[in-house]
This record gives sequence, C-alpha cells and structure tokens, in this order.
Amino acid sequence: MKHYRQLLLAMLLLLPVSIWAQQITSPNGKLQLQFELKENGKPYYALNFKDKPVIKWSALGIVAKNVPSFEDGFEIATTEENKVDTTWEPVWGEQKEIQNTYTELLIKLIQPEVQNRTIQLRFRLFNDGLGFRYEFPKQANLNYFVIEEEHTEFRLTGDHKIFWIPGDYDTNEYAYTTSKISEIPELMDEATIPINAQSPIGHPSVQTPSMMKSSDGLYINIHEAALINYPAMGLNVDAENKIFSTHLTPDAVGNKGYIQTDFNTPWRTIVVSDDARDILASNLILNLNEPTKYEDTSWIKPMKYIGVWWEYFVAGKSTWAYATETNVKLEDDFTKLTPNGKHGATNERVKAYIDFAAAHGMDGILVEGWNIGWEDWIGNWKENVFDFVTPYPDFDVEMLQAYANAKGVQLIMHHETSASATNYERRLDRAFQFMKDHNYPAVKTGYVGQIIPRGEHHDSQWMVNHYIHVAERAADYQIMINSHEAVRPTGLHRTYPNWIAQESARGTEFEAMGGLNPDHTTILPFTRLMGGPMDFTPGIFQTDLSYYGTGSTQRVNTTLCKQLAYYVTMYSPLQMAADIPDNYERFPDAFQFIEDVAVDWDDTYILEAEPGDYITIARKAKGAAAWFVGGITDENERTASIDFSFLPEGEKFIATVYADAKGASFDKNPQAYNITKYVVTSKSSLQQWLAKSGGVAISIEKATKETAKGLKRLR
Amino acid sequence: MKHYRQLLLAMLLLLPVSIWAQQITSPNGKLQLQFELKENGKPYYALNFKDKPVIKWSALGIVAKNVPSFEDGFEIATTEENKVDTTWEPVWGEQKEIQNTYTELLIKLIQPEVQNRTIQLRFRLFNDGLGFRYEFPKQANLNYFVIEEEHTEFRLTGDHKIFWIPGDYDTNEYAYTTSKISEIPELMDEATIPINAQSPIGHPSVQTPSMMKSSDGLYINIHEAALINYPAMGLNVDAENKIFSTHLTPDAVGNKGYIQTDFNTPWRTIVVSDDARDILASNLILNLNEPTKYEDTSWIKPMKYIGVWWEYFVAGKSTWAYATETNVKLEDDFTKLTPNGKHGATNERVKAYIDFAAAHGMDGILVEGWNIGWEDWIGNWKENVFDFVTPYPDFDVEMLQAYANAKGVQLIMHHETSASATNYERRLDRAFQFMKDHNYPAVKTGYVGQIIPRGEHHDSQWMVNHYIHVAERAADYQIMINSHEAVRPTGLHRTYPNWIAQESARGTEFEAMGGLNPDHTTILPFTRLMGGPMDFTPGIFQTDLSYYGTGSTQRVNTTLCKQLAYYVTMYSPLQMAADIPDNYERFPDAFQFIEDVAVDWDDTYILEAEPGDYITIARKAKGAAAWFVGGITDENERTASIDFSFLPEGEKFIATVYADAKGASFDKNPQAYNITKYVVTSKSSLQQWLAKSGGVAISIEKATKETAKGLKRLR
Repeated sequence: MKHYRQLLLAMLLLLPVSIWAQQITSPNGKLQLQFELKENGKPYYALNFKDKPVIKWSALGIVAKNVPSFEDGFEIATTEENKVDTTWEPVWGEQKEIQNTYTELLIKLIQPEVQNRTIQLRFRLFNDGLGFRYEFPKQANLNYFVIEEEHTEFRLTGDHKIFWIPGDYDTNEYAYTTSKISEIPELMDEATIPINAQSPIGHPSVQTPSMMKSSDGLYINIHEAALINYPAMGLNVDAENKIFSTHLTPDAVGNKGYIQTDFNTPWRTIVVSDDARDILASNLILNLNEPTKYEDTSWIKPMKYIGVWWEYFVAGKSTWAYATETNVKLEDDFTKLTPNGKHGATNERVKAYIDFAAAHGMDGILVEGWNIGWEDWIGNWKENVFDFVTPYPDFDVEMLQAYANAKGVQLIMHHETSASATNYERRLDRAFQFMKDHNYPAVKTGYVGQIIPRGEHHDSQWMVNHYIHVAERAADYQIMINSHEAVRPTGLHRTYPNWIAQESARGTEFEAMGGLNPDHTTILPFTRLMGGPMDFTPGIFQTDLSYYGTGSTQRVNTTLCKQLAYYVTMYSPLQMAADIPDNYERFPDAFQFIEDVAVDWDDTYILEAEPGDYITIARKAKGAAAWFVGGITDENERTASIDFSFLPEGEKFIATVYADAKGASFDKNPQAYNITKYVVTSKSSLQQWLAKSGGVAISIEKATKETAKGLKRLR
Repeated sequence: MKHYRQLLLAMLLLLPVSIWAQQITSPNGKLQLQFELKENGKPYYALNFKDKPVIKWSALGIVAKNVPSFEDGFEIATTEENKVDTTWEPVWGEQKEIQNTYTELLIKLIQPEVQNRTIQLRFRLFNDGLGFRYEFPKQANLNYFVIEEEHTEFRLTGDHKIFWIPGDYDTNEYAYTTSKISEIPELMDEATIPINAQSPIGHPSVQTPSMMKSSDGLYINIHEAALINYPAMGLNVDAENKIFSTHLTPDAVGNKGYIQTDFNTPWRTIVVSDDARDILASNLILNLNEPTKYEDTSWIKPMKYIGVWWEYFVAGKSTWAYATETNVKLEDDFTKLTPNGKHGATNERVKAYIDFAAAHGMDGILVEGWNIGWEDWIGNWKENVFDFVTPYPDFDVEMLQAYANAKGVQLIMHHETSASATNYERRLDRAFQFMKDHNYPAVKTGYVGQIIPRGEHHDSQWMVNHYIHVAERAADYQIMINSHEAVRPTGLHRTYPNWIAQESARGTEFEAMGGLNPDHTTILPFTRLMGGPMDFTPGIFQTDLSYYGTGSTQRVNTTLCKQLAYYVTMYSPLQMAADIPDNYERFPDAFQFIEDVAVDWDDTYILEAEPGDYITIARKAKGAAAWFVGGITDENERTASIDFSFLPEGEKFIATVYADAKGASFDKNPQAYNITKYVVTSKSSLQQWLAKSGGVAISIEKATKETAKGLKRLR
C-alpha cells in the first residue's frame, strides 16, 4: 500500500500539472488546506476546520529589494503529497515521546517571466493545525537576495476575541490586552506601556504567538516555528477587514533579511481546535523544528534552582552593583571603588543560598551581580559593560564553587549582556571557558537595553542568528542556556536542546514592578509558551512586599498556592524557586511541593483550560511513579474539576493537595492554605475551590498501607 | 631650575586665571600656538611658523546629541605649560631612537552655565608641528554622551596646492588629485572614481593625511594621531574661504561617537615646514601615541615575504577560489565541488614558493585563497563567508608548514573577512588558535566590501575599535597583523607594535587595474604613510602584463628600478616581494637588492623630497653596517643628487647602484637597468639619472681591499 502511494507521487512529480488548485486533509479529517493560484498567478491558501473556514483565502508572497519579487506571475510546476506518521523522543520535555503526524503538500511554483525562477511552498497539515513555509531552492538565477517584506496574510473569519501585546521589534514584556480584533487600534496606545528599550511597530500590530477565540468557540493560535536566519514576525492588524499580515523586524538599514539559496523561511503556524485544551497540548511547533544534530546530549539536564535574584526586586534589600560609583570601566580596579554596603552576591550571602539549596534538593544556585560592571550597566548604549570573567572583590568564584560542589549543588552562571551582543560574542569563548574551568553547567543570559550592533533589534535577523550562535557555541562547551530578553521561542529547543529555557515575556519580576494581572498566567501558556518553555521564575511566597519594611507597596497578584501550581502549569525544564530562602523557611510545608515537583516529564495531561480564565494540568514525572497537578484561576474564584483518570488503573495513590484555604484571596489573604492528603485512584475526581487569583497544587505518589492509613479516599 | 618651573606651574594650576588668551612657542622657537576664548566664550586657536600664519584663528568645539554641547559658554579655569624633552625606542621602525620634544599647553575650560562642566584642551607644540586634543575628565555632571559632530576648524591662509582623495567613510583607495583647494569642488566628481564599497561624504571633502603646499613654499600636513574609540576624521572643504573642518564618520544610526568620561579624542595634527624633507622625517604622530603596554615584544619581528598573490591579478593565471560554483556555504563539502583548475593556493604551487623563499632569504610566504569560501565572497553582504580554519581540499596546512619550517621559513596567514567584522570576531579566538597550532607568525587581514554590522563603516567608531580589538587579541596569541582595507593608520603601531603594517591606500594591486599614476608613490609618503607603514607590496619586475599572454593589456607604471627603490622609499617592517618568483629568477642580479635590503632600521635620512615629484631616502639597517638608498621620480625623468654624508666618516664602502639604463622609461622600456659598484665615503656624492617614473636603489656595505679592487671611487 505504501509502495503504491509513493509510486503515484513520483508520477505527479514528473508531470507538470495543469491544475491551479490543490487541497489536502489532515490525518484525522478535521482540517482542510486549500491552495490556489488566483489573478496574475498569485498564490493563496485557505484553512477549514470541521468544514468551517478558519483562514479565508489569504495571499502569500515575499517582496525582494534587489531581484524581482516572489508575489505573482507563478505557475504550478509540480505538486507532491506526502503522509507522515512518526514518533520521536525529545531530550527533555512535557512528554517522553512525541507523535508527528501530518499530511504534506509541496507545491513547486515557477515564474516563467523571471527566467523560470522557482520557489516552493510546503504545507504540513496536522490534526491540530497547519504549518507552511516558503522554500527557495538553489538555482542558476537565484543565489542571493534581500527581503523588503514578507506578505503572508491571515484573513480571519470574524471579529475574534484576542489576547495580545503590541507588535514591537525589541520587547515581549508587555502586559496582555484582551479585546476584540476591531478594538485593537483604539487600545494600541494604552497597551503600549513603557518598557526598557522598546520599539513599537508604530501602527496597529500584535506579536505572536497570537491567541484568538471566535464567537462560535474556535481557538486559533498563530505563531511561527524554527526561526533561523530570518527576522521574527509581527502581525500587522487590519482591524476593519480582520486581516493579519506579516511584518518582519528590520535591521539597522531597514532591510528584513539577507537570503542565500537554498533557504527555507520559518514555518508560519496556525494551531486550531474547538477545545482550548488541544492548543496547550499541541506539539505542532516542536514537530516543525529539526531534530538536534548534537551527537551527545547526556550533559543536558533539567534543573531546579534558587538564586540571588528576587532580593534585587525587593526595594532596598540588595543590589547587583558593588560600588556607589556610577561611571566605571572594565579596566578599573574595583577594589578601589566605594562599596555600597548592599551588594547581593557576596561570599556570605551566596554560601547561605548554597546551604539552603543543598538542604532542600535544589540543583543549582543562580547568582546575579557576581561580576564587575553593574554600576552603570544600563541606559548608556555602552558596549563594553561586562567581561563575564571578573568577579567583584567580595565574590570568590573558586571558593564558592568548591563550597557548592562539596554539598552536591552547582552555581549557575549569569551573563547579562546589556544587549551588547557584539561585546558578548567577542568574549564568548573566554566566558564559556571560564564556566568550564569553574564547573558551571548553565548560564542565564540577559539582553536588557538597546542592541549593539547599534540599529539592530532584539528580533532582527542578525540577533536571531546571534542567539543561535550562542546556543551552538555553548554546546561546544557543554553548557545550557537560559536566555532572557531574547527573541520569543519558536520550538528551537528541539534542535538546540541546551537552549533549555527563555524568558521573552512579562515574568515574575514585574510582580515587583506594578504586579502581573491575575489572568496573565492563564494567557501565557496560550501565547508565549506555545514556542517553548519559559523561565517564569515562580515560587514567590511572600507576596506582599511591604513585609520587608523598605517602603515598597508592591504586591504579587497571586495566592501562595497559585505560585505552587505554576510549577506544573508554567512548563520549564529549568525551574526556579524564586523567593528568598528565608521565606521558604517560614512555610516549610508548602515549600515541600517545590522540593518534590519534577522538572522533566513522561507525559502531560491538559485537564481544563480556557485562555484568560483558568488552566489545570497534570504531568507524570520522567521515569518515576510520581504525578503532579497544577490548577490556576484568574481574578475570579472558581472550582477546578480534577479527574485523576491520567493515573494508572487499579492502583492506589496518595495525593497531597496544596489548596487555598477558605477566605484566601490574592489581594487580601494570599498565604492562607491547607495541605490535605487523600487516597486516589484513576477513577477519582476532586472538585477544588480556588481563591481569586488562586491555585491548587497536587503531588501524587504510590500509596502504601502505611501512608494510606487513615486518609480519606477520593471517589 | 626644573624645580622652579614645576613650582610655578603648580601655582598657575591653583589660581583661576582671568586672562582669555594663551600662547606657547615650540622648543626651537619656530612655531607659535595661540589660544583665545572669543565671542560667547568660544575657543579658538591659531598656528604660526616663523612668524607667518599657518592656521588662522580657527574654532574648536564638539556638538553632543543628548547633553549641552561643548562649543561655547566657556571660561578658562586654569592653564598649565610644560616642556618635555625625552627619547624612546620603538620596537621596530625607521629609527632606533626617537626624540620627543615639545612645549605643552593644557587649558582647563569651565562652562559656568552647564553646572560648571569642564573640558580640557591639550596642545603639544613640537619643532615640526602641532598636536591638540579634547579631553573630557570624569565629573559628576558628565558621564556619558553621544557626539553629533566635532567642529574643529583648520582655517588656511591661501589657496594652497593640495594632494587629495575624496572624503569617504569606507575606502582610502582613491587615486590622488593634485589641485588648488579652490578647485576641489569642481574636481570632486572626477576624483570619486568607482571603488568597491565606497561611501563618499557627498559634499566637497578630503581625507587625511592631507598634504598641502602654500604658494610661498610652506608644506602643511593635517592628520590625526591615536585614533582610539572614536570615528576617523574627514575634512569638509569650504573652498571659497579655504576652511577645512572635521567630519566624523557616522555609525548605522547616524551617531558619531559614544563617549564615556574620562575620555580624550584623538590628536588633531598639523605638521609644518618650509622643507618638504621635514614632513617625511616627522615623528610627531608617533610621539603623540601612547607607549605600548605589551610586556614582551620579543616575538614581534619585521619580515620580508613573498606570496601567492600577484598571480591573482595577472588575468587568467590563477584564482583565490577553488571551485566553479558561485553559491557556497561553509557547511558545504568542498571536496564535492567542481575544481576550476586554476586554484592558486595548491600544495604544489605553495611548495614552489617555499622553495624560492628559502633559497633567497625571504622570511615568509603569504598564501591567499587557502581557505574555503572564495567562490562567492564578494558583493552579497554575506556574513558567514569564511571560517578562517578550513583549507581547500588541495591545500594541506600541516604538510606545508612542516615543509616550510624544515627550510627555515614560515607561512603567513591570510584572513579575508569580506568586511564581515562580526563573523571575524565570532571566530577570532579559534582562528588565532589555529595559527598558533600551525606556527603562523603573522596574518594579513582584509576588509573588502560593505561592513557587517550592517550600516557601520570601515572608519566608524565601532570598526576603529574592532581593528584594535583584533590587534590586542592577536598579541595575546603573539601574532602580528597586517591589515588591508582597515581605517588609515594614526601611529597606533607605537601602542600596538604587532599591528605591524596596513594597506589603507591605493597599492600595487591597482597597477593591474588601470595602473597607478607615476607620481602616486611620490605622494603616498606625504599622505598615507604619515600615519604608519604601508604594505604597498612593491617588487613587480614584469611590469607589462601582456607578457603572460592572457589578453591583459595592463601595465605597471614604473621601471624595474623604481620597484627596487620602493624598498627604501615605501617604509614597511613587513615588506613584500610581490612578483611571481619566476620573474625574479629571470632577473637574479636585480633581485639581489631585494634579497639584501633590510626591513628594520637604525636611522633614516631624507635626502631629497618634493611631494608629487620625487623622493630620495637613505636608511641604515638595524644593528648592521649596511645602508640602503632609494630614489624615485614621477612621470618626469630627473637627476637625483645623492649625498653620502650619512655614512660614518673616515671609512670606505662599496655602493652597489641599481639604476635605470639609458633609454629606460616606465611605459616603453621598464626593464632596462645597470648595476654598478663604486667605492664611496661620507664625502662622496652621486648625480644619478632616473628614467620617467624611474628609480635608483643602492646598497652599501663596508669595503675591503678585495671588494674595492678595481672599482671607481665616487667623489
């Protein structure tokens, strides 16, 4: 049967086709992709779900600066249909095994009036959505070109509800706005809140992953996969006609991409379902990325970590900087500067963090502010801010690593680049060698500020290549990367599994700078996390920052239990316990969940989900009979329905439930929680009340007679 | 006496001065520098030579983008006068010892209405000219600023004759135009000949070093010294009023410098004399540069070298590229490409070069085209063109280095970056490590094309820093740098003596692309070489390229003897014998001069000089009783007067004179020469006829009875 199909395809390939329209159906029959060359040989595609349009006929095309454009004048040369059904195992992830099942349509287009130049459009139709890309084969008349703009359209079928942040070349750290598409233009100014080093596109536009919901209950997510050697895509919004179109990030001279054939653009992705849980469960973006080429991945290991970090956000407690001076140079003798008395990364402080990590099963300790240069690191578009190898006078790298390693934990490196990518690349080999010499397994990189090379943007082609270069070079040194302020992820962690986490969104730090909206983390998994894991840095137990008596009136807008739930709902293989150890020691029974929770998974079960409202997820720990559940809600209290059918049948388990106590709420009583143990089986279910911006966290292990003794059994 | 002066100065420093004008005189009394705050507290300077104005009252000032400008509103806070008279020894050079004698005036200016902000103007008045710079001390109200433009004026006293090339942000490879200042605007278009990756300033402007001659015989040279962390300076030309003013090279976003205090600008230099020989003899620019900070310089050694290079310019002979394909990527398997059959850097060819070098006392063999990427290296603004470590399939690095080293010679590395500085920096450590692993002592770097970071220029601040970074990093690996297409030199080889040579001008390669003007090399020492040695790559014996029968009608516009003379007149510690060895084997008696000539010197004697007309120079070899003389002329034949008084008195020497033969001329009979030996003493002189664009070369050694026997004695 298989042989027969391949033969048929070969025939199609050999025969130029005269038809102008093509169509494929997803393996499960629910999705339909149509392709057609319309007026002047201009390519269009359309996408249906259960026979209802998701994307109406939308144009495809790329305009070049120095060669005739790839917009029209096409004829179909050949088409090829392919069906693929395979599985693969990620190095780490939400599942041990990932299914990759799709119908592929490859259309070779020819431009007879441009020296028979050819391009290809490759569509992959999965059961949960569509991916497609432009391909430019190597050919005599097409070696190099410069992109002026990509004109891929997404013509939507109605005035959908959309969870969006403004299109911007430099930052993803906006708060989400929930509105109708038609309301985007009027809300644009308000949504474009001040962010360090922002470059808003300047007309109505949104970023991807863009999450929408139609009035008839269809969930639609637009993003991209495998962003390599190409600028990141924003979406221009034609609010009147409900048309999105690609807006690529320009470089310093306004160009949008330097292309050498053969070349494939990133995939444009549309994940679609009438069940929101399918959006979170989708592996479409990962499947569209290439397998890793790393031969040895044994050194890539998910980690749980604490860090000298949150205390920098608690006003007045401690500082990254060591000295009071505000004008320093790398060649300065820092021992001669004036200590400000509040430096966070001191030997003493770090040893205390190491002690805590060792006592509580944390794998690593991130230390920010360990290296010289923080006195004037921001706002000056300065190139040589950091050298990544010189510690402050009160930070002894050798001593601290020895101290940590003796206790079975490791320090995690911090490379804030202040967005000076040139300075970082120049020093990269030395910085990584320093890490190897001192047994650092991972580094958190940061890109705060205006990019150097000056005129480039965080999301431009050059920077996209930079992040990948850093990941690849890190792999040469067996180092894991956790990048902050880098371009939003597009599933590249399949190809570069040592690029283990990213920030690229509004994370916990903003809880100390105005607070995150209570619904923020019910949106992030539908948006930012579609591309890959996020180093959201959960785990803040002391949510009222006035506690510190430093004059701060800031407040983390969650209950304590919601912070616990994040360890399951906010997937990251590099997962932080972000609060100050002192606070964990005040709530040791709650901290037990963080100690227990896994960071790598055999399987994931999306139990409940509605973007902007709630998420409940269960996961099975990798290679262990341990399950963890997290459930969160927005500003409204709710009752989560937790069905334990994800557990193996016929066995008994102990579920430890960490739940908001009666009367808890994020704004008034966030630290009220109960911890209850139940006996559960695969037939059990739990109706669990969550406070306003509250959450529930559950750890599950196999029951023994002794542990089950006296516990209530959940039906 | 000395103590008394210092005491006086200290008093001046302590007392705010009320006077608005200052004046100093050069140690020899010939030059006078005046300074005055004129209207609105705006600073001006003026320069006199022998009581005649050289520079009329000219404004000083810098405009900033983000802070109030440094143009006026100044008061003099303090002034300080200093006299310095020292000597120092360069690592290599035209002299063993360099005298550094000047009168210094340091003026501290204060801006009372800008929070008492202060800057300093430092003038150093030498016997042969003036250097001055702006200094921005670290202070509470001035940490960072961005330069919009520097407005330093040079108001000239008349419509001088000037030897000029158009102001350009990216190239120094223009042919010189000789004209009146007033004629510059009308000649601008014609002078702006097409050059790869050029960015002409766009209005009348010239580059420095700018060489002028007044109608009353004053020679004036304007340039800059110690160009560090600042863009290179062009000169706007106000042809009507004979005013030059600084025009800094902008970056990708139009800014002209990112400054962090404390900071000093490069020195603006004016070398002046009524004897053209003093211009060539000047060490003013070197003296204004900082001594090297390298602790060990023993590994820095001047070299004479040949190279697989000129044959690429002889049409059709051989190519840098290995394959016929015109679209390659670094990840391609080059063994699978189609050899073009003309690849120059083959094992066989390089071994022949090694054999020649070893047989003829050459120290090194440069090999261009050894590494993958040349098939499409130019014109595509491509970033990853070269990796600097992967040889072509027909070039065996290990074998060739072993072959060379066994014969006592070394291969010289070639790093063409195709102006992709980011790619080079990214790979720099690996490239240099590769060189160390394979015993390469030096590298010729190249920057052909449009700069990456895109939008930067060859002469912008970022690139200026790049070249220095490469030199410093090379020093860490004990590697010498010979940069081509880099920013013009400003004496930085004192500070970075491993940055041993540069091109940065129109060199021998252009003899194969239209030919250099016969007067070109009588101008270069007065312009380009004022900043430092030039890898001009002399030594072309086969000047008529039709000789090769490849259809080329190109012609090198010199006689053979003028090529010999270049080894003395075109100073470089890295000196090439640029022709193909086969040609040297056809003229072994003439090649003897190249074999004999030194590349490092105890002393230098400028015997005759007139810019655009002729130059005759004698030099004494470093640490050896050997002298060499070179004399050249422009398109006119002439008789050089060579006075041997530079020789030690009371001794006899043998002078071997390589001279144009009767009837020789650059365009009709360039290879006609005579070699004559004479006995000479310090009292001898020689009147030597030079052909049109001809030259004379003389090597001198101590006479013995035997060697002197039968030779004519010159009176």
